Amino acid sequence: MRTITIQLASHTYDILIAGGLLERLGVACRQVELAGMPVVVTNPTVAALYGAAATASLQQAGYRPLLIEIPDGEEFKNAATLQSVYDRLIETGADRHSFVVALGGGVVGDLAGFAAATFLRGIPFLQVPTTLLAQVDSSVGGKTGIDHPLGKNLIGAFYQPQLVLSDVSTLMTLTDRHYRAGLAEVVKYGAVLDAEFFALLEQKVDGLLQRDVDLLGAVVARCCELKAQVVEQDEREAGLRAVLNYGHTVGHALETLCSYRALVHGEAVAIGMVAAARLSCQAGYCTAAEQQRITVLLQRLGLPTELPVVGCDALTTALGRDKKNRSGTVQYVCNKGIGAYRFPRITPAELAEACCSGR
Amino acid sequence: MRTITIQLASHTYDILIAGGLLERLGVACRQVELAGMPVVVTNPTVAALYGAAATASLQQAGYRPLLIEIPDGEEFKNAATLQSVYDRLIETGADRHSFVVALGGGVVGDLAGFAAATFLRGIPFLQVPTTLLAQVDSSVGGKTGIDHPLGKNLIGAFYQPQLVLSDVSTLMTLTDRHYRAGLAEVVKYGAVLDAEFFALLEQKVDGLLQRDVDLLGAVVARCCELKAQVVEQDEREAGLRAVLNYGHTVGHALETLCSYRALVHGEAVAIGMVAAARLSCQAGYCTAAEQQRITVLLQRLGLPTELPVVGCDALTTALGRDKKNRSGTVQYVCNKGIGAYRFPRITPAELAEACCSGR
Repeated sequence: MRTITIQLASHTYDILIAGGLLERLGVACRQVELAGMPVVVTNPTVAALYGAAATASLQQAGYRPLLIEIPDGEEFKNAATLQSVYDRLIETGADRHSFVVALGGGVVGDLAGFAAATFLRGIPFLQVPTTLLAQVDSSVGGKTGIDHPLGKNLIGAFYQPQLVLSDVSTLMTLTDRHYRAGLAEVVKYGAVLDAEFFALLEQKVDGLLQRDVDLLGAVVARCCELKAQVVEQDEREAGLRAVLNYGHTVGHALETLCSYRALVHGEAVAIGMVAAARLSCQAGYCTAAEQQRITVLLQRLGLPTELPVVGCDALTTALGRDKKNRSGTVQYVCNKGIGAYRFPRITPAELAEACCSGR
Repeated sequence: MRTITIQLASHTYDILIAGGLLERLGVACRQVELAGMPVVVTNPTVAALYGAAATASLQQAGYRPLLIEIPDGEEFKNAATLQSVYDRLIETGADRHSFVVALGGGVVGDLAGFAAATFLRGIPFLQVPTTLLAQVDSSVGGKTGIDHPLGKNLIGAFYQPQLVLSDVSTLMTLTDRHYRAGLAEVVKYGAVLDAEFFALLEQKVDGLLQRDVDLLGAVVARCCELKAQVVEQDEREAGLRAVLNYGHTVGHALETLCSYRALVHGEAVAIGMVAAARLSCQAGYCTAAEQQRITVLLQRLGLPTELPVVGCDALTTALGRDKKNRSGTVQYVCNKGIGAYRFPRITPAELAEACCSGR
């Protein structure tokens, strides 16, 4: 088992990474001294696969868990679903000692984490991510929240879990599409933070596509380490943490324009990274060969790299709603070569044009 | 001007207290280095009285404020109103540098503060309380949130303002009912935290009822000092902070049962304090004479002290939903004599019976 410790000013917690960890969920909850009712928030897909294992593990550790299912899909990461979780928590008598176990992917983790952050002004929670995307990205760092009809993640809170338990065995049941989407975030870490890791990914494309468990344990752990280093320096996204948004500025805008359906998050980020690499090359931050390495690795991993058919004006408008928008410009993340980054400021119109010019 | 500084682990900020302070709002925002768009959240009643003054002061300091009105009344401290604030923030292009100015009473402060806590995972905010209740209680300590149909303040966050600006001149326009309701919270501080202050209130009933500005400045400041001492020791309500719930356990239940209409918060708390004093006497924590002093002071201040007509079973059920409910008992706050407290545990049924037996 690999353990990555996140040390924040307010709170220190561990990320545990291994195959078969779900069986140890109950014991892990006891180890972080949680005593109340566990409320497992999950979706029907994950519940069918892992709900019984999670519940059994909690029961064996002497807990009396409650399971709440929310609908599956980013389009349900909204105020109505959040309200339904609050309703269940209240109906079942959850109190300040109850704790939330977010069992699922990024949608479950974000929404369940935000419910935990805001129910009774905050109750403890655990992240038990079951998708690659969630294991390498959304479960780490304390970002929780929901979408608004006008943009992703506009409502939320920084709220840290007591523990993250990443069972890489759960990645075996992911659809190819969602598994590959998670690889987009993996590539991100290499592209802007770790050239050696990027080169490893290039060498291990076959192992990645075959979901080699040992390789996955190592890859998830390295991503968490890289994210932990960033988050420890910048818990509330005042500066450095923006590097993790590489590919996400355009990615989020595309997700909004496509109503969260045509593109899953990782796919949108892959297209966003291709746009970022192109812009980085145009700005002189990287060579054409380096730009190409990023695009080719994403393609080899089965990820989309072409901008879908969206209007350039609509893209400009969507980009203008970016959370990082300030005085008409957004802070944009470019790759500097491979494994490093730069933060130029750019207008939404310039960014949209750079995207649209690529097709 | 009186200044009370709140020193928390994460954040230090000032409470400024004086008559006529609203004119200095813009300058005060500059002093705490806020640079973006101010979003003044208020209600139509307060907007008519102080909206122009607040806006003018911000404009004079070079800001371009936006004013958002929410409906007046506790029954609107809900998810739908919160959503309408999010919508306006997004439509008007508010970004991470925008900041919320909560101009009004407890409902505005709680809801606007929670909107600030959760919009873009948290933007800065100021409390500008215009009711006595808000100046002595709800604006201090970082509790923000909304109500749920099944109970008050069930959804929320601990989120600290950058500054609290308490203009005691604004108390002159309060209705008698709301002004007196605020005095209930003032009595609370004396009853469980400061015997000398309680005695002062007994001596100054006439000055309080006449809204003497100098007296009010001193009273608001003393209440803030007392609350600051408690909150500094226990920011997130793990222990000591519960003392501030004196009278509130029963008070909140009554507000829920009466649909937030028949009783305003301070009135419900007054009745709750009478119940608490009775229970304290029964439990041997105070004498009958001390119990009587609390009831008599509340009566002299024009506050209700009799339980309204609610069923004892309904009260038990409502008390069972208390946030502090744990394993079937609630931690209850008793006065120990005058000016001190005890925290016995009690079941909702015992508490309801003690309330109902008093009528």
